[in-house]
Amino acid sequence: MPTPSLTKNILEKLTTIVGPAGIETNKEELLCYSYDGTGQEFLPEAVLFPENTKQVAGIMKIAHAHTIPVVPRGAGSGMTGGSLPLKGGLVLALAKMNRILEVDPENQIAVVEPGVITGNLRKRVAQDGLSYPPDPASVAFCTMGGNVAECAGGPSAVKYGVTRDYVLGLEVVLSDGRILATGVRTNKGVVGYDLTRLFTGSEGTLAIITKIIVRLIAHPTATRTTMLLFGDLQEATSLVAKLLLSHTPAKLEYLDGTALNIVAGKLPTPLPKGTRAMLIIELDGDPESVAIQAEKLDLFLARQPAIQQQVNATDAKQAKRLWFARKQVSPSAFKLKPDKISEDVVVPKTKIPDLVQKTEKLARDLNLLIFTFGHAGDGNIHVNIMVDKSDHKEYARAKQAKESLFKAVLELGGTLSGEHGVGTTKAEHIGLELSETSIAVMKELKNVFDPLNILNPGKIF
Amino acid sequence: MPTPSLTKNILEKLTTIVGPAGIETNKEELLCYSYDGTGQEFLPEAVLFPENTKQVAGIMKIAHAHTIPVVPRGAGSGMTGGSLPLKGGLVLALAKMNRILEVDPENQIAVVEPGVITGNLRKRVAQDGLSYPPDPASVAFCTMGGNVAECAGGPSAVKYGVTRDYVLGLEVVLSDGRILATGVRTNKGVVGYDLTRLFTGSEGTLAIITKIIVRLIAHPTATRTTMLLFGDLQEATSLVAKLLLSHTPAKLEYLDGTALNIVAGKLPTPLPKGTRAMLIIELDGDPESVAIQAEKLDLFLARQPAIQQQVNATDAKQAKRLWFARKQVSPSAFKLKPDKISEDVVVPKTKIPDLVQKTEKLARDLNLLIFTFGHAGDGNIHVNIMVDKSDHKEYARAKQAKESLFKAVLELGGTLSGEHGVGTTKAEHIGLELSETSIAVMKELKNVFDPLNILNPGKIF
Repeated sequence: MPTPSLTKNILEKLTTIVGPAGIETNKEELLCYSYDGTGQEFLPEAVLFPENTKQVAGIMKIAHAHTIPVVPRGAGSGMTGGSLPLKGGLVLALAKMNRILEVDPENQIAVVEPGVITGNLRKRVAQDGLSYPPDPASVAFCTMGGNVAECAGGPSAVKYGVTRDYVLGLEVVLSDGRILATGVRTNKGVVGYDLTRLFTGSEGTLAIITKIIVRLIAHPTATRTTMLLFGDLQEATSLVAKLLLSHTPAKLEYLDGTALNIVAGKLPTPLPKGTRAMLIIELDGDPESVAIQAEKLDLFLARQPAIQQQVNATDAKQAKRLWFARKQVSPSAFKLKPDKISEDVVVPKTKIPDLVQKTEKLARDLNLLIFTFGHAGDGNIHVNIMVDKSDHKEYARAKQAKESLFKAVLELGGTLSGEHGVGTTKAEHIGLELSETSIAVMKELKNVFDPLNILNPGKIF
Repeated sequence: MPTPSLTKNILEKLTTIVGPAGIETNKEELLCYSYDGTGQEFLPEAVLFPENTKQVAGIMKIAHAHTIPVVPRGAGSGMTGGSLPLKGGLVLALAKMNRILEVDPENQIAVVEPGVITGNLRKRVAQDGLSYPPDPASVAFCTMGGNVAECAGGPSAVKYGVTRDYVLGLEVVLSDGRILATGVRTNKGVVGYDLTRLFTGSEGTLAIITKIIVRLIAHPTATRTTMLLFGDLQEATSLVAKLLLSHTPAKLEYLDGTALNIVAGKLPTPLPKGTRAMLIIELDGDPESVAIQAEKLDLFLARQPAIQQQVNATDAKQAKRLWFARKQVSPSAFKLKPDKISEDVVVPKTKIPDLVQKTEKLARDLNLLIFTFGHAGDGNIHVNIMVDKSDHKEYARAKQAKESLFKAVLELGGTLSGEHGVGTTKAEHIGLELSETSIAVMKELKNVFDPLNILNPGKIF
């Protein structure tokens, strides 16, 4: 437990800024802001609920003056500990800064506050025939601020890219309380260094995001969703790179046998016996374009003997049910074991079968339950090592498996994280991927923005 | 003229690294490395031709030890002075580092050295059915290193994005000679701060780029290119945002009457009298998709009374001729006047007509020849103020026009540069767009990477 840093005097100053309703120090309430998607828990000393940028700036000035840790928090749905107050101090809960400030349909941009739920932005812009493509599995409750801080991805990244590809500009509050606007409101802009993308994915360690300008695209008016069933995981994953050579699906996901079993009851159709893997392919565009893409894809798929069965969603409802099941894989995994080590490694597309083979070997060799699923189209594979942390021997083997997995990923030309970030869970491993020079440079950048190390301390490094 | 910094001893050390054939100090030769697309001239003290990263690192160690300015140079085709040795010192001509190191068609990436000509990379990957989309007008001679340093764009950015959107990873040499690898070889990757995109667009001021990993996409197999002729520039530019609401062209360019006149002889068809503006629209995809897009677009265009004539390119040769003419606008402009102030401002798409009106007013009010053309689809407009620098009064009016233009662009919600960068030509104006805090932060970043200010000094700030 870190040394408490909040005196009565500091709490009074903070209350002056956010008002009595904007600060919480009651332990039961603090508990609600102590956890995230990793299952870790760290108690803050106080939670603040700022309503605008000015209040955030005021808070940072006080935190800066007294060297108090500040951890920005959206929905707490992160997978690597990004929103956890590791060193105590203040949690900045941004839920009240949840306004969609502007949607400009003609120029195809939106301006939002960080607490806006990503799914709400997507619904809002859909009213104007527009789409904000990034779609993490937590889209129904995660927030735009968190998405930018972690550079969130999702199934649609294979065609549309990740959060970074949609952020045009930001407003942030620096660690000393200065307010900084970055970027532009247009698709192009190269005046000065690219601070926008430096902050994107910086996991709350460089600045507090208080406003986000995103670009939007035309909403696809049609989709076709297909499930492909396989008796063999290797054969399923071997198809991915081959398929992507001549097709551009909007989503291309896979689930292994265990992942399928976890959500079997939620799938739109029962699975035949012997199903050991599924690919989900979604095409999108306008109806004519989807029809052409589907025809071309079906011709290709008909020539692949490894496919046991192709099931096309019959309507939007069925497709929705399928994607719901896909989103439930991660939360439903706790059926298997009480704890989960969840990684989001990436390998070149042609190397997915090798990675899958490696995880199967690790599971056998170390007597662990490991299953995989994820964004096959990007080579971004969610590897889940299911454990019972109270079984210390099993947990030790699981940590060994994680280390071996990371090494294998890097040998295959991949990276340790595609969309979850480093946070606390990968911090000790970044030296496997990043050189000493790289880490040294990153620490110098951290020092420019946060010389007192008060912004989300203990993350990444 | 800056104080010479190269002693005989330093020159000998440099010669040891690059060999006698890798260094040039002869004044006639130095002149070839003293200019760029802006028409400015600054003589270096020596030009070095390193052949590999190790040599670049060796050069930087010497430059660092003796505080010698180093300016990396590709083809010298930049439009804002990025490759000019403003403070003398060394020009690092990267022409010998021009190998395409790797093309991986299955994983759709390429790895290149900075001296690779962008057009050559495009040709090479086309052999594998792949495309590297960024296509600056100088594509036939500009280099990948320069493109990354400036974050180059081009007509295809409206659909495919700019250089930043294709750079996955870099190898750079830091100002003290350390070698640093950034980024990944996969489409996703979020481990640590985004150094890749921080270096992209940093105009050679933070590091020397020695290797570039880019992502590739499937090469479109069909295109349709259309010219729309208008009697009125306002009407032409008013159509842009409207068209983009329901169509996704691969390119959407415009030329005003003066730009058209400059290249009239090079166009594939003669222009009818009274043509005052042209939109060029290119659709791409596979043949079926292009046919559908064309049908939809033609229906839309048929309902636009402002269009005087629609001419579709009859074959690839005619389309090529049209794009060649488009690329010739900038170099051919010197027919009009000996000097050109060339800006690449960006405004929201709906504001292009306002910007055009503003430039016309400036031309009238200040008695100047100003013409505009450019990437209408992005709102990225090339504004060209044609002058005779020896006419000091005219040149003073031109500079006044440039300042007024910049202010108007920012009032319209735009930015001073979409793809050319700041360099020397916009350095004094960045305070119009960037706040004091923003500039202060950027200078601190510069100081992290280049505390001695030896990397491309005098640019941006």
